[in-house]
Amino acid sequence: MASNSFGTLFRITTWGESHGKAVGVVIDGCPAGISIDEEMINNALALRAPGRSPYTSPRKEEDKAEILSGVFEGKTSGAPISILIANNDADPSKYVPNKDLLKPGHANFTYLEKYGAFDFRGGGRASARETACRVAAGAIAKQLLATFNVTIDAYIVQIGSITAKPGCRKERARSPIFCADPDASERMTALLEATKAQGDSIGGIVEFYAAGLPAGLGDPVYNKLEATLAYAMLSIPATKGFEIGSGFAAANMRGSEHNDRFFRQDEVITTQTNNAGGILGGISTGLPVYGRVAFKPASSIAIPQETVTTTGSPATFRLPEGSRHDPCVAIRAVPVVEAMVALTLADALLLNRSAKI
Amino acid sequence: MASNSFGTLFRITTWGESHGKAVGVVIDGCPAGISIDEEMINNALALRAPGRSPYTSPRKEEDKAEILSGVFEGKTSGAPISILIANNDADPSKYVPNKDLLKPGHANFTYLEKYGAFDFRGGGRASARETACRVAAGAIAKQLLATFNVTIDAYIVQIGSITAKPGCRKERARSPIFCADPDASERMTALLEATKAQGDSIGGIVEFYAAGLPAGLGDPVYNKLEATLAYAMLSIPATKGFEIGSGFAAANMRGSEHNDRFFRQDEVITTQTNNAGGILGGISTGLPVYGRVAFKPASSIAIPQETVTTTGSPATFRLPEGSRHDPCVAIRAVPVVEAMVALTLADALLLNRSAKI
Amino acid sequence: MASNSFGTLFRITTWGESHGKAVGVVIDGCPAGISIDEEMINNALALRAPGRSPYTSPRKEEDKAEILSGVFEGKTSGAPISILIANNDADPSKYVPNKDLLKPGHANFTYLEKYGAFDFRGGGRASARETACRVAAGAIAKQLLATFNVTIDAYIVQIGSITAKPGCRKERARSPIFCADPDASERMTALLEATKAQGDSIGGIVEFYAAGLPAGLGDPVYNKLEATLAYAMLSIPATKGFEIGSGFAAANMRGSEHNDRFFRQDEVITTQTNNAGGILGGISTGLPVYGRVAFKPASSIAIPQETVTTTGSPATFRLPEGSRHDPCVAIRAVPVVEAMVALTLADALLLNRSAKI
Amino acid sequence: MASNSFGTLFRITTWGESHGKAVGVVIDGCPAGISIDEEMINNALALRAPGRSPYTSPRKEEDKAEILSGVFEGKTSGAPISILIANNDADPSKYVPNKDLLKPGHANFTYLEKYGAFDFRGGGRASARETACRVAAGAIAKQLLATFNVTIDAYIVQIGSITAKPGCRKERARSPIFCADPDASERMTALLEATKAQGDSIGGIVEFYAAGLPAGLGDPVYNKLEATLAYAMLSIPATKGFEIGSGFAAANMRGSEHNDRFFRQDEVITTQTNNAGGILGGISTGLPVYGRVAFKPASSIAIPQETVTTTGSPATFRLPEGSRHDPCVAIRAVPVVEAMVALTLADALLLNRSAKI
Repeated sequence: MASNSFGTLFRITTWGESHGKAVGVVIDGCPAGISIDEEMINNALALRAPGRSPYTSPRKEEDKAEILSGVFEGKTSGAPISILIANNDADPSKYVPNKDLLKPGHANFTYLEKYGAFDFRGGGRASARETACRVAAGAIAKQLLATFNVTIDAYIVQIGSITAKPGCRKERARSPIFCADPDASERMTALLEATKAQGDSIGGIVEFYAAGLPAGLGDPVYNKLEATLAYAMLSIPATKGFEIGSGFAAANMRGSEHNDRFFRQDEVITTQTNNAGGILGGISTGLPVYGRVAFKPASSIAIPQETVTTTGSPATFRLPEGSRHDPCVAIRAVPVVEAMVALTLADALLLNRSAKI
Repeated sequence: MASNSFGTLFRITTWGESHGKAVGVVIDGCPAGISIDEEMINNALALRAPGRSPYTSPRKEEDKAEILSGVFEGKTSGAPISILIANNDADPSKYVPNKDLLKPGHANFTYLEKYGAFDFRGGGRASARETACRVAAGAIAKQLLATFNVTIDAYIVQIGSITAKPGCRKERARSPIFCADPDASERMTALLEATKAQGDSIGGIVEFYAAGLPAGLGDPVYNKLEATLAYAMLSIPATKGFEIGSGFAAANMRGSEHNDRFFRQDEVITTQTNNAGGILGGISTGLPVYGRVAFKPASSIAIPQETVTTTGSPATFRLPEGSRHDPCVAIRAVPVVEAMVALTLADALLLNRSAKI
Repeated sequence: MASNSFGTLFRITTWGESHGKAVGVVIDGCPAGISIDEEMINNALALRAPGRSPYTSPRKEEDKAEILSGVFEGKTSGAPISILIANNDADPSKYVPNKDLLKPGHANFTYLEKYGAFDFRGGGRASARETACRVAAGAIAKQLLATFNVTIDAYIVQIGSITAKPGCRKERARSPIFCADPDASERMTALLEATKAQGDSIGGIVEFYAAGLPAGLGDPVYNKLEATLAYAMLSIPATKGFEIGSGFAAANMRGSEHNDRFFRQDEVITTQTNNAGGILGGISTGLPVYGRVAFKPASSIAIPQETVTTTGSPATFRLPEGSRHDPCVAIRAVPVVEAMVALTLADALLLNRSAKI
Repeated sequence: MASNSFGTLFRITTWGESHGKAVGVVIDGCPAGISIDEEMINNALALRAPGRSPYTSPRKEEDKAEILSGVFEGKTSGAPISILIANNDADPSKYVPNKDLLKPGHANFTYLEKYGAFDFRGGGRASARETACRVAAGAIAKQLLATFNVTIDAYIVQIGSITAKPGCRKERARSPIFCADPDASERMTALLEATKAQGDSIGGIVEFYAAGLPAGLGDPVYNKLEATLAYAMLSIPATKGFEIGSGFAAANMRGSEHNDRFFRQDEVITTQTNNAGGILGGISTGLPVYGRVAFKPASSIAIPQETVTTTGSPATFRLPEGSRHDPCVAIRAVPVVEAMVALTLADALLLNRSAKI
């Protein structure tokens, strides 16, 4: 379980720093026979790209994935798939003035403690730039899942105190901020504009919804499907919480209310409600798997902040001129959540092939 | 990452069904030189034991751990530590009448889908009985952590709609339900009695708090410390959510408010607040690591429930006479949460030994 | 890849010291639906048991495996299978006089260097007693493989300078030393008697032969089938070498001679020779997989040996009175080799289920 | 344990096909603080490069490694190190005529069976081209080991029936075929020339020798140091055997002769002989770790060979015009053996950091 890898059978390893030459991902264990091309991956990357809307960071790079291996005659061959995404807009000079300051809410302090070194150029490995690789790999996982009719959506359900109407998950694409409730979307964008004008940032919540899963995915005890999903979600930068199905609200529910009632519908056994979030005992029931992920407000803000240098002297942290600044990281995280759900389910699907003789 | 194992270097594997001969755990990778004995493990097990208070299930077994290997002259030898806990109070006969019914909120449906078989005796492998093994292994992890002055507490902070006062974590032992706020504890026990009288159950929230950690534990990207904690927590039966530090509340916070300000105190760099929950960029800061885990209400309730048989015929599920019935599983989960935090941190501590040359 | 575990999907973890309370194994990842019982395991253990013939060590224990979990109504349930074998003949007192001496050819020196401690009682964890657990787990792996018509044999092909006729592998059971060539078997037993009378020991070579494998098992690059077999074999105590197919003899062969010629026989593509040992590019061809494992002479000999104490003072090592003493460890290793081949192939069989969409 | 990865803590993942755009490796878990540069890697690659001598295949590419990530200010930063090696001399057109033939001794048959597809261009993933990535990663592992004064050599000890004088391992560099015995080297080159003239190939044996290791590396039971070395060696293409220390010769040795005698020399406990090969009970003793690896003759030969097509029709396999053709693959494998030993020891070194409290 090396630090930069995710998954057991469908396993990705990502590499690259925010302002290095490139970032990339190696996907090992993808079954042979899946049709993939670069366009599919680039479409996924475009959704995550900065500069996509005024509400996300204006980095001007165009993410172009290059498939270097693992595809033969248009299909996965069973060999590892290596994808490279060049870093085009990567001028590190503006990071020099702050390089000896501890950045509030950022990882340079802990990297220095752990490794004795920190690549200050745009956050190096700690940058959310790494998540482009997750999205690229996720596009392939989704293609695998699609052959089994599994679909995955993710969308914004809360920014600040504004919440979307429950159940809104279709047509999120029309919203510049991936919120499928048009009314909430409008109020959220207003909040984002105000927050940005103040040089501040704000948190949010992303919901995911996976439909079409067969029953039986996930393992009992430690690799419960909700546990691997929680691990996947909390590995995304800036996440602070995860819930599955009823989530934290279950703390104030009765068993008689929370238990989903089994019944038979068209020869299939299912349940009338889905407080479980599509998982019982760690194993998928066949109903939709859904949950929510909490994101903290971006730590990069335009407001100057008191801090210390790496040697402990008082200092003031100011974002460099022309710095990228996301008022709400939850928005750009939507395709990342989707990708991580896809990677988790693809792995569970393959692992489940050994359950029975 | 086999299904019944947890951890990379400090790695446990548990086995055993609720009503089989025994349950047990093998701990592999515990460093040599740690003093351990069976009493330490049995003390930990006593906290989790059913029948400990009127608010938990009255299973009458006395959990006695037997160390079968891995300890030589009172200390860990580097060899795997095998611990066995016999199942004494394990009469499966009462489970026979319901063996062909799908139990609402339970895993027999998904086990049947996945494996084609389900050990109906007390839930078999899906039973919370397995968590006794986590507590036993956690006692050893805590002993390892204690040599580095790391301490871990867990305690109830919410049952139903009743919440404990923030910051109450000491002297939880005086409360029969592990709640360190005496006033809330009293109201919670009243609620539990009423719920039990109604044949129903209720959910709750457990908080954990680990202090004394060195900075540097946890890995960037996928094995972030919060990600492995989330995985650990969601692997506990009946959990529905996890949050670290500010958690879901971060969704409605500003960056200027959420960012913890660095300063120097007595030659050590630290922060004035701890919204981060002691982790930045996946790596421990040296401040306390804390978070919360949501538990659903127990699915075993005395109220009869409509369901279907395994072949889909309508039926009514009634708990067998004299059945164990926990009104709130969050309470007995407190030592389990503590154990899982300990196992996660022990592994992170060992993994961190390779960070630098 | 914890030290005491073997396998990825079909994964075993063993525990226990030679003279502790018991040894045992947990098998995780065995598919549900395989019929197993304790008798099958005990039959396998009987083949490995010391005291089986005058040519192996006379330990008088009767190995009785107890299945503690993972079997429900006579079949594997998908839950981990825990097997315990008690240590009955385990009087450690005779090891006390030598406890501070470095034993030539033994592991107490290296355990002390690594762990700072060594369980001197019969070798503790370093004892070949651990291999009983491999044989128990191997019996289950063989049962899984049998459902796919895979069979595995192992047998002695060399002791000292005496070699068995090539191709002799059937009816090994009639030989007290698992050698299927009756003539060689007779000469080998004479050699063993002479060696034993001199208080000395001698090395040997075990061959394995697995037939009925489907093509496609094993992975390219690192998890080549021959690589996992080599890993499995060299993990057996006292092994010094491994070869697959043509083995070391290939060093003196021509390509024109070594290349196995493909042809079609009864609608199946196969090869006329099998220098490859049933594996090309790390993946099984469908032909028999065979190879050889070299064992050093047992390091426990009755002849007194010069050595030093753990602190470096000169001393003489004498086997304790009434000590167990195997003139040739390769013999008792035959069922262990068989078990390790079975465990390797069972894992490869499950891993191969994800090769294609 | 994904197919294209090697190692637990110091872990590499390689990717790329022989005639794709590039091959590459990601090294995850390399400790921070090690000085590395591209020149060091390119020097290692030059030793493996084809066309280095008339005795290896004349591929004209110049392998240039590009470090894409993981190095900051000249030192490893703790982030994954991505290295890319472009495929410059990669014209696949000459492979087209044979694309539907089963190539004797090659992997296209087994890849087709496993994956349903095979990248016929130069062997695709099955090509020894992948070993360039091992050499690149090995150069970094060697740099890590060098800081602990561990050195590793590998050299030819046998080609056909010609063997080098035992103990010759220095000054191998003067020999075009990495053989440190000048007399044997001369006779071997004559044999290689004759073999090549016949359009044939021949096998060989490579020895490795690692000195300066601390005692304590390697784990008991499954991850024995000799087992991980065996796994590493048999993962190299064309290998048929592995032995450690006394190896197969141990089968004809007595215990009284094989046991290495402990004594004290200059305050250090060591042994007078080293039949063990520097490992006892799976753990390094502090003496040199050495062993041998057998290579089959290259399966690509100029002599036409009878075979069948992928659908089973009789056919003749002829190497394409101007094809690369190595008379003895063992020679180019020397730096690969060295690299795999380095990767194995680097991982063992890091794993050993958790042995004691």
